[in-house]
Amino acid sequence: MSAIPSNLPLRNDLIGEEPYGAPQLDVPVCLNVNENPYAPNPDVCDDIARRVRDIAPTLNRYPDREHIALRRAFSDYLAKESDTRLAVDQLWAANGSNEIMLQIFQAFGGPGRKALGFAPTYSMYPEYARDTFTQWVTVPRNDDFTLNIERAVAAIGEVRPSIVLVTSPNNPTGTPLSMDETTQLLEACEQASVDGAADGVHPILVVDEAYVEFRTPGVPSAVTLIDKHPNIAVSRTMSKAFAFAGARVGYVAANKGIIDSLRIVRMPYHLSAVTQAAALAALEHTDEQLSTVAHLRQTREQTAAWLAQQTYKGAALTVAHSESNFVYFGVFDDRDFIFRSLLERGVLIRDVGPDGWLRVCMGTDDEMARFREAFSEVLRLAESR
Amino acid sequence: MSAIPSNLPLRNDLIGEEPYGAPQLDVPVCLNVNENPYAPNPDVCDDIARRVRDIAPTLNRYPDREHIALRRAFSDYLAKESDTRLAVDQLWAANGSNEIMLQIFQAFGGPGRKALGFAPTYSMYPEYARDTFTQWVTVPRNDDFTLNIERAVAAIGEVRPSIVLVTSPNNPTGTPLSMDETTQLLEACEQASVDGAADGVHPILVVDEAYVEFRTPGVPSAVTLIDKHPNIAVSRTMSKAFAFAGARVGYVAANKGIIDSLRIVRMPYHLSAVTQAAALAALEHTDEQLSTVAHLRQTREQTAAWLAQQTYKGAALTVAHSESNFVYFGVFDDRDFIFRSLLERGVLIRDVGPDGWLRVCMGTDDEMARFREAFSEVLRLAESR
Repeated sequence: MSAIPSNLPLRNDLIGEEPYGAPQLDVPVCLNVNENPYAPNPDVCDDIARRVRDIAPTLNRYPDREHIALRRAFSDYLAKESDTRLAVDQLWAANGSNEIMLQIFQAFGGPGRKALGFAPTYSMYPEYARDTFTQWVTVPRNDDFTLNIERAVAAIGEVRPSIVLVTSPNNPTGTPLSMDETTQLLEACEQASVDGAADGVHPILVVDEAYVEFRTPGVPSAVTLIDKHPNIAVSRTMSKAFAFAGARVGYVAANKGIIDSLRIVRMPYHLSAVTQAAALAALEHTDEQLSTVAHLRQTREQTAAWLAQQTYKGAALTVAHSESNFVYFGVFDDRDFIFRSLLERGVLIRDVGPDGWLRVCMGTDDEMARFREAFSEVLRLAESR
Repeated sequence: MSAIPSNLPLRNDLIGEEPYGAPQLDVPVCLNVNENPYAPNPDVCDDIARRVRDIAPTLNRYPDREHIALRRAFSDYLAKESDTRLAVDQLWAANGSNEIMLQIFQAFGGPGRKALGFAPTYSMYPEYARDTFTQWVTVPRNDDFTLNIERAVAAIGEVRPSIVLVTSPNNPTGTPLSMDETTQLLEACEQASVDGAADGVHPILVVDEAYVEFRTPGVPSAVTLIDKHPNIAVSRTMSKAFAFAGARVGYVAANKGIIDSLRIVRMPYHLSAVTQAAALAALEHTDEQLSTVAHLRQTREQTAAWLAQQTYKGAALTVAHSESNFVYFGVFDDRDFIFRSLLERGVLIRDVGPDGWLRVCMGTDDEMARFREAFSEVLRLAESR
């Protein structure tokens, strides 16, 4: 708990707030922040270092503010992955999708503006809103965490937000969104007005696809909608499936007008030459970096099935349908006890979202075996309390 | 000029705005963004690549959110440079001092709050204010660009800002601030109130020391004041003297309460593992990285003296006293003509600040020779217009 001296002019609404973030603990099995557990292979590591060495003699100079080479690489990546060729001016990268989202809120949010999300969802969203003085409004999902599309569409018209933010697959629940649902949200945005904006202004729909690579292969990404819809932005990251969290590279695909709006609020030279070089190296090894995704999908299916067979106080556990690299499960009378007991056994998972639910991220086979062993023990312990 | 479609919900106050930044042009002599013109030497480049290779196998994991090793390295750096030993929790780094400043404005600014600066000064300051809905208020400097300390002290009491921002050496003028002046500003802050905050809250004084290494050796840095003053923050960067602009590393020294305030608003994992590794490598080579600073100081003295000897339309040029790596000079009836004519000759400088003035950054000896040659030609041309 940080105690800020009361004579410092901290913003009134930040007084008493704590820094956001899952605990960074030194434990044997970390299954708490949805990383890909498989390290980049030595060839990839060599090429990252080589690319950085190549640009090192230019480090006295500022980087390419527009990071054109990297945007071109993302264009190639999406052309292959989603069969959608976007122009360089339809792509934009930043230090993690955190920074992408902050730029979106900085450009389109602000005092008097509202952002609409569908709870439970990613716990950083209220922080982007708070940091930009945007009002964060949520509409509840169904009990199984699927989107209540009628309620969502109605809320877009009633709330008149400038930003509608939907996550697919959703975090922490893993729930995917169908293309039909995305299109309905988009059409609702195209018909809605925005509080605090001129007539004829419509909300943008931001689809956060941080975990999209873990979906069933062949399911289309929302990037396929950009061609027909000027008001959709699809946020992506290299931190999850791409096994590149440490390099902090997020990106967004959208039409040029949205990208140009982000360019107004971005800090000049926000993306370093080192980051650009490292990301380009990793993107050259896309196949290797994504080679573990199919196995992690299997691990998810097995883990979800295994969890559904476990009982807690006489009843089977409920496991949310996930198309991500994590599984959300409950419902525990005292999730804090389960969380802490796992941690005592060296297994760190995440206590986030609705009370009683826990999220476990897919680790290596060995890590998952240790999770199952510890969790079985903890369930027995809970039984005898 | 970017044309944002009018049906997008861009913030009303951003409509018509352009992305900030000096032109990134491919010209032979770039003297426009105050970089150190000397590239890192091959040993430094090798060590940067080696450090990045060392951490590459961990890139599937998120970086140390608190970047402890890097903060410790900055503590060592300041202990050596300014004979001031700060604790790790008195230091904080980010992607360039841009991000440091944005975090300061995010934590201490906001709607209803004001930031006070002394014009002419760095042209990004109004952008940080705009991006955080903070009101940017300026008090004019004296005609020779020195601070009018009485006027500054009075303004702190009258404006009741939450942030007082002073740059030393100032950009674009090069004007240094004396320790006595800094202390007077600090004391004025300690006695002032803050609009929009509770009683007993005082403004913080932010001293932007981006160019401090170019000052006369032996002049103390404002970091020596941190020990006695809880409300000072000193912003620094590796982008200028340290010849590391491409890596985007800024840092701030302040008491723990201020650092903890920034931790509330920072994006989690804002500083990548690659950036942390590269910066640690460069800091191991502090002596090499700073080895050109003394020569650049000489170049500045020679350039300032040379410019003062030049005449424009019959009168000697005015050259502002600079303790930075750039020189600010004028006064031209049509600075745009001078700027463009230099550019036509392959020399890019900066047309920034008060009308009639131009800023030239110190390049290599060869670059400065080309600047002088081109500028002599352009002056003759201006004479005959």
